[in-house]
Amino acid sequence: MPELPAGISVLPVTGLPEFGPGDDLAAAVASTASWLADGDVVVVTSKVVSKVEGRLVRIEPGTDREVARQRAIDGETVRTVARRGPLKIVQTPQGWVVAAAGIDASNVASDSLVLLPEDGDASARRLRARLRELAGVDVAVVVSDTFGRTWREGLTDVAVGSAGITALDDHRGAVDAHGNRLETTRVAVVDELASAADLVKGKLAGVPVAVVRGLPLQRPDGDADEGTRPLVRLPADDLFPYGTRDLVGSRAPAADLAPRAGGAAAAAAAFRVASAALPEFPVVLRHGGEDDDVVDVHLPDAVTTTSALNLGALVGVALVQLHAEGWATRWEPVATAGGTSLVGRLWVGTSH
Amino acid sequence: MPELPAGISVLPVTGLPEFGPGDDLAAAVASTASWLADGDVVVVTSKVVSKVEGRLVRIEPGTDREVARQRAIDGETVRTVARRGPLKIVQTPQGWVVAAAGIDASNVASDSLVLLPEDGDASARRLRARLRELAGVDVAVVVSDTFGRTWREGLTDVAVGSAGITALDDHRGAVDAHGNRLETTRVAVVDELASAADLVKGKLAGVPVAVVRGLPLQRPDGDADEGTRPLVRLPADDLFPYGTRDLVGSRAPAADLAPRAGGAAAAAAAFRVASAALPEFPVVLRHGGEDDDVVDVHLPDAVTTTSALNLGALVGVALVQLHAEGWATRWEPVATAGGTSLVGRLWVGTSH
Repeated sequence: MPELPAGISVLPVTGLPEFGPGDDLAAAVASTASWLADGDVVVVTSKVVSKVEGRLVRIEPGTDREVARQRAIDGETVRTVARRGPLKIVQTPQGWVVAAAGIDASNVASDSLVLLPEDGDASARRLRARLRELAGVDVAVVVSDTFGRTWREGLTDVAVGSAGITALDDHRGAVDAHGNRLETTRVAVVDELASAADLVKGKLAGVPVAVVRGLPLQRPDGDADEGTRPLVRLPADDLFPYGTRDLVGSRAPAADLAPRAGGAAAAAAAFRVASAALPEFPVVLRHGGEDDDVVDVHLPDAVTTTSALNLGALVGVALVQLHAEGWATRWEPVATAGGTSLVGRLWVGTSH
Repeated sequence: MPELPAGISVLPVTGLPEFGPGDDLAAAVASTASWLADGDVVVVTSKVVSKVEGRLVRIEPGTDREVARQRAIDGETVRTVARRGPLKIVQTPQGWVVAAAGIDASNVASDSLVLLPEDGDASARRLRARLRELAGVDVAVVVSDTFGRTWREGLTDVAVGSAGITALDDHRGAVDAHGNRLETTRVAVVDELASAADLVKGKLAGVPVAVVRGLPLQRPDGDADEGTRPLVRLPADDLFPYGTRDLVGSRAPAADLAPRAGGAAAAAAAFRVASAALPEFPVVLRHGGEDDDVVDVHLPDAVTTTSALNLGALVGVALVQLHAEGWATRWEPVATAGGTSLVGRLWVGTSH
């Protein structure tokens, strides 16, 4: 038999009990997985973390389960990203964008719902510290949850908390064997660990913890452990802030608009986009204005109902485009009496 | 030392040569990983599959590398989903939605670009058959690539081809230990396998193949092996068909519009959404019409430039909403002379 190369192993921690609020999860893991060793990565399903932390919502008798669930989702939503029927994709207070705010009703008593851990990184740090205390081992901890992905069917496990491991493995600026510089490669190692662990945990087997052994770990300095924070994509980099249902409906005008450089240029670009998109609404749009954050919108000199309607369509589409790009806007109509062609002013900036 | 539980191992296949068009990848894997056994999952980086299949684009001398790259991306694009500067998220002919059509310029000679395999499932099937032929082993094969995800930083490996394994592990309808029915859990096992394999492959180490051993496999019947096709999300289920840049710009009116049930109702809903989103453009919209696919749009009786512009804004936003929901539209203005309040007709249907 030829010798196997050194790889990693993914080991299920079988035989753990059911957990409830206040239980010592780390103690159960330490005694069940008495083989834990330095350098292991302990991957814990968020659900058991939430259970021991009491992140449960009780469904009161007589309350409809779906109503309770939607209410719980609303409570964990800082932004609705998309919606279709009862399905909501939302951003949670932790920054994760996930269906139903990550709230789950499986593998829990039927009168309860499980929320995501309030701070998965803090949960991971506590588990890591307690495992060191109880078992004398220096492990990394990943708290995992099951997420869907846009444009792909099927769920995979990802990390919603981590400690003792660098979440993003940054290869930017490194050079490959051909001399090419790697520009954008940052690997979400903790997400890949969560996925690897899920292969042995399974959804029905009741195995909420697995250990990945043999992976050389990049470790943060103790005080500089950012956990999974680097995985949260900041809004400025987000090309998909809205789903189809939410795109238009979520936009409201900004009363408290502050200037932001480039507003007028963005407006001009948005009007170009709108004109190209609306060949059925031909109108010669004229816009001008001196400031960087305001655009005067004029109709051609011959004002008709049709030209006004066509211009309005351009304005509406340009607003959607600007809002989708993260701008806030304020429209002020100008009275058109007296033969002026000026119909309104559009302020483009940022909302407080 | 306590006995370890049975888990899985992820083993790198080290020592493989550089590959080029026509090389026998399976033969190299079979001889290098002479320990391959029945039930193993061989995870192969798509790049080496593309190399042996000749899926390379040569950058002609004197051609700018970025220009060549953008041209190659355009050639592999069936739909641009989002765009920001040089970054394009596109859908490829295989159905994957991925940055730059999955085209990579790293780990390849600097005068070449690597495309995704033309049919990753067929590639996986061929590798699987050839490994059986050469090594006498019955393995599953996953072809992996490195993808980004919306709303999360960091890349993970996912499957772009598979053979001999069921890509989606379907738990729908199963019942957990608490008697709750699992409604939506379908696990993308091949994606989790790709991620697990990436942990030992790494981006710089030049290890394009890894083997996952010990996982009980769900296997398709030979002739019913759909590979990764079940992972491709169909448009009707896609809540995020457009990125911010593309949403408005990509929409064009449909000349060849066919009726589709519910068009008028969708239009009415879209106008409600638009009205709510545009409080700065107050107008009493009246719409009616008898058919299921056409809406007559009226201004209030007192037609002014302002009311026409406000109505136009509603129409523009309603169109964006309808297009985002997958409807095609055609707008036909109606001459407003003679005191009629009718300004246009909106057809809502489906495009051929």
